[in-house]
Amino acid sequence: MDNTTQPTTAKNCTTFYGGQTGAWRVLSFNTLCGSPLLWVSHIEKSEAAPIPGANGYIWQLQGVASYLRYTTRPEKNMLDEKPSVLGRTEASYAAMISLKKSDEWWQLTQDERRNIFEQQSQHIRYSTRYLPAIARKLYHCRDLGGEFDFITWFEFAPDQSGQFDELVDYLRHTEEWKYVVREVDVRLVREEG
Amino acid sequence: MDNTTQPTTAKNCTTFYGGQTGAWRVLSFNTLCGSPLLWVSHIEKSEAAPIPGANGYIWQLQGVASYLRYTTRPEKNMLDEKPSVLGRTEASYAAMISLKKSDEWWQLTQDERRNIFEQQSQHIRYSTRYLPAIARKLYHCRDLGGEFDFITWFEFAPDQSGQFDELVDYLRHTEEWKYVVREVDVRLVREEG
Repeated sequence: MDNTTQPTTAKNCTTFYGGQTGAWRVLSFNTLCGSPLLWVSHIEKSEAAPIPGANGYIWQLQGVASYLRYTTRPEKNMLDEKPSVLGRTEASYAAMISLKKSDEWWQLTQDERRNIFEQQSQHIRYSTRYLPAIARKLYHCRDLGGEFDFITWFEFAPDQSGQFDELVDYLRHTEEWKYVVREVDVRLVREEG
Repeated sequence: MDNTTQPTTAKNCTTFYGGQTGAWRVLSFNTLCGSPLLWVSHIEKSEAAPIPGANGYIWQLQGVASYLRYTTRPEKNMLDEKPSVLGRTEASYAAMISLKKSDEWWQLTQDERRNIFEQQSQHIRYSTRYLPAIARKLYHCRDLGGEFDFITWFEFAPDQSGQFDELVDYLRHTEEWKYVVREVDVRLVREEG
């Protein structure tokens, strides 16, 4: 029986805190388009809703690891063969790429978005090539009312940096990216200790 | 420049307050499956995030009117010909149907869910027959961490009650509904005033 008020924050969300401390130290911080996000020296990633009254950070972003929005069964089977594992010891580099897409994108129907996302842009097919070396996890923010629609978190070994650049360069030249109106690319290294 | 903390609630959300007062008076309140929701005599629907410190209600549920998850362009065109308009004077009856689907549903891929939703269950095609008389609006709750995945709000004239029963009876016998693990059906009448 539910006779209490419902929490007003997502229970299954991940929070990214930007500030002067955190497990990940910023190597580069670039706003590619749209309104900039304030530079910070560190990011802390917490698999929890924001801590009420948490302080000491400059910004916080939330996202939810939600269900698959475009992936088909054959694509899911392909992805399952190359699992994306975060937290690997050798993967001391990370990237946090935050995106917002245009209203035009969100007003498209499901089949139109899928067509741009995969048939035209091969988002799944192309990026799967980089698995499992470049592990990733997608967090949805749009329904939470956040300033971004998505945050993707990547982890890889330092010697995979060139491969990672190749992947994001590919994506940024796709038809899908024509709908991106804000993009912030933060590269990070795991703090020793 | 963003140097403030992000709100922890969805900015574009709608909140349903259940309590002893509100614009809509309860005619019937039925939990069809899953954990019951506490009975209330009235529901207030507010096109806003929950009011901090709001009191006097027994429960609150939030949802976001989000983008289309399954609808194709031909279906959207069909829907646009019969617009769903809330707030019509003659539509003094409402229904609030809150649903939660199983983990099995959410682990399906997009093509599998679409196949069940429309090819097998004709969710869009069948329910469009009842437009514009039975107007409706879908709110997504899952990514907000709510206790339901969806809330659908319907408005119709009292003489359409039989038609509304027919619509929900159809849906409850579809393949899609086999994945529904919690359903609460509240029928309401607009308070005179």
